[in-house]
Amino acid sequence: MQEKIIGFLKQSKGYVSGEDMSGELKISRAAVWKYIDQLRHEGYDIAAVPHLGYKLEDCPDKLLPHEITFGLKTKRLGQNAMFLDTVGSSMDEAFRLGMEGAPEGTIVCAETQTKGRGRLGRRWASPKGKGIYASLILRPHFAPAQTAQLTLMTAVAIAQALTKISGIKIEIKWPNDLLVGGRKLAGILTELRAEMDQVEFVVIGFGINVNSTAQNLVEGSTSLKMETGNSFSRVLVLQELLVSLEFWYDGLKKQGFQPVLKAWKSNSATLKTRVRVTDADGVAEGVAFDLDDDGGLLIRQDSGVVIKKMAGDITQIK
Amino acid sequence: MQEKIIGFLKQSKGYVSGEDMSGELKISRAAVWKYIDQLRHEGYDIAAVPHLGYKLEDCPDKLLPHEITFGLKTKRLGQNAMFLDTVGSSMDEAFRLGMEGAPEGTIVCAETQTKGRGRLGRRWASPKGKGIYASLILRPHFAPAQTAQLTLMTAVAIAQALTKISGIKIEIKWPNDLLVGGRKLAGILTELRAEMDQVEFVVIGFGINVNSTAQNLVEGSTSLKMETGNSFSRVLVLQELLVSLEFWYDGLKKQGFQPVLKAWKSNSATLKTRVRVTDADGVAEGVAFDLDDDGGLLIRQDSGVVIKKMAGDITQIK
Repeated sequence: MQEKIIGFLKQSKGYVSGEDMSGELKISRAAVWKYIDQLRHEGYDIAAVPHLGYKLEDCPDKLLPHEITFGLKTKRLGQNAMFLDTVGSSMDEAFRLGMEGAPEGTIVCAETQTKGRGRLGRRWASPKGKGIYASLILRPHFAPAQTAQLTLMTAVAIAQALTKISGIKIEIKWPNDLLVGGRKLAGILTELRAEMDQVEFVVIGFGINVNSTAQNLVEGSTSLKMETGNSFSRVLVLQELLVSLEFWYDGLKKQGFQPVLKAWKSNSATLKTRVRVTDADGVAEGVAFDLDDDGGLLIRQDSGVVIKKMAGDITQIK
Repeated sequence: MQEKIIGFLKQSKGYVSGEDMSGELKISRAAVWKYIDQLRHEGYDIAAVPHLGYKLEDCPDKLLPHEITFGLKTKRLGQNAMFLDTVGSSMDEAFRLGMEGAPEGTIVCAETQTKGRGRLGRRWASPKGKGIYASLILRPHFAPAQTAQLTLMTAVAIAQALTKISGIKIEIKWPNDLLVGGRKLAGILTELRAEMDQVEFVVIGFGINVNSTAQNLVEGSTSLKMETGNSFSRVLVLQELLVSLEFWYDGLKKQGFQPVLKAWKSNSATLKTRVRVTDADGVAEGVAFDLDDDGGLLIRQDSGVVIKKMAGDITQIK
């Protein structure tokens, strides 16, 4: 109902009378008042003038379900949205919803995370209200090994959307970091529940530094604001991301991995550089010269031997 | 405390006085009596004679934690056990425990399952008290794709244990069914939670028809009892399974996949037969001639083309 009231207010230029809303939505005028009151508590600035009614003066830039879905140009992704002011990790919340059967496209957004995490359990700083901390449920008919494709696809989709919004050139560091001039703008985390041969669902989490400042972030990070000097509406950024994600996700399912691979390569900060990779097998060094069809990174060692890495930590070497 | 009392009773030949137990366990005699009463409700036959004390006459053949762990010759697997009389699926319960951080080796056993399932959401009949319906949590440092090895390893481990107990020759049908003369004796189901590059935990479920009769099971199934005419203690069967699983699991981690592969091949009902495979790609037919190093099934089609399947349904063709 809140969503309907917000829709009503957003679509009207001037004042809307409580009576009109009460009639249209088939609820009492007292109920209309109650919802308006709730919306004000969520941060909506709603003027009320006797005999005229209500007018929406300003919306909060919070990732509230009715903000995300209002005017959202996707078919599925983000159309079922959940908002949490504070959460341990949006990943855990989305995973729980996935286990309960939440539909594909469900997104969990948080204003802040007390235990925001990146790959391999590392911490992800989530300064309150400054970034987008969200986890999206997908249910592709994939084998578990194919989920590597989704991570690379997400990197491509987010990089494109952020470039479109901000004009910044964004590079992808294998496998899942988005960088601007070597500084970290966004991270991606993929978790899955699967049977041996079939994914049940995937949760794709992304943390994006939008309006954060250097004080909010760990060293070596950056934000859209730090790069451009401008603040951005997180709601509009997220909507753009969801449109881009749906475009690439549908493409991946219909046309396969090649278009993702091509786009990934053209944005890569890793290819044609000398890298050191640390993983369970130890440390290896060489030139990262290509990505193979699984999304694995191909590295030519000095001996000439080519190795392939599906995971690991990468450091660029000058 | 129940476990300690059962241990006490099991270790003594004759009667144990309530006073001795109360002193040794540092609880009141009334508390001893309360625990004895609970144990009787679980099916333990405990005699009580004034001035003599308590004597364990008989244990229930239920997969109770203190039955499983008593005398269990493993280091980790099964040492943390959970019993449920009725559960939807032991898989879901174990998955939930895995998410809460339950340690490696935790096992969930049920007397019956109302929604027992096999691969790809198929039903698994779980007649009450007749079989072993259990799910085991493992936390290997594996990539998600490596979990295929765990399924094949489990098939080998269970086949060996069941042969040791019953003397029956057991064959493995790729990837995860155990057969006797073409009839299904046991099934294995693997589920996992993972990041893209690292398994968080794996739940290995197994359903084993122990004392079930033809009336309890779906057509084409069999049980240890149907094959041998004898009833088996489910507790002893499960303990033997856990020892075998731990042996093969430790081996897999230390020596890699080759020993599993070799044992799997020598018990295979699938290799060197003509098969039809149905999976997401459609239907393919040919001779299953080998398993490759990932656990994938290699099939030579009549055209001579070799295809590899990581999953799918297999039918043998005469």
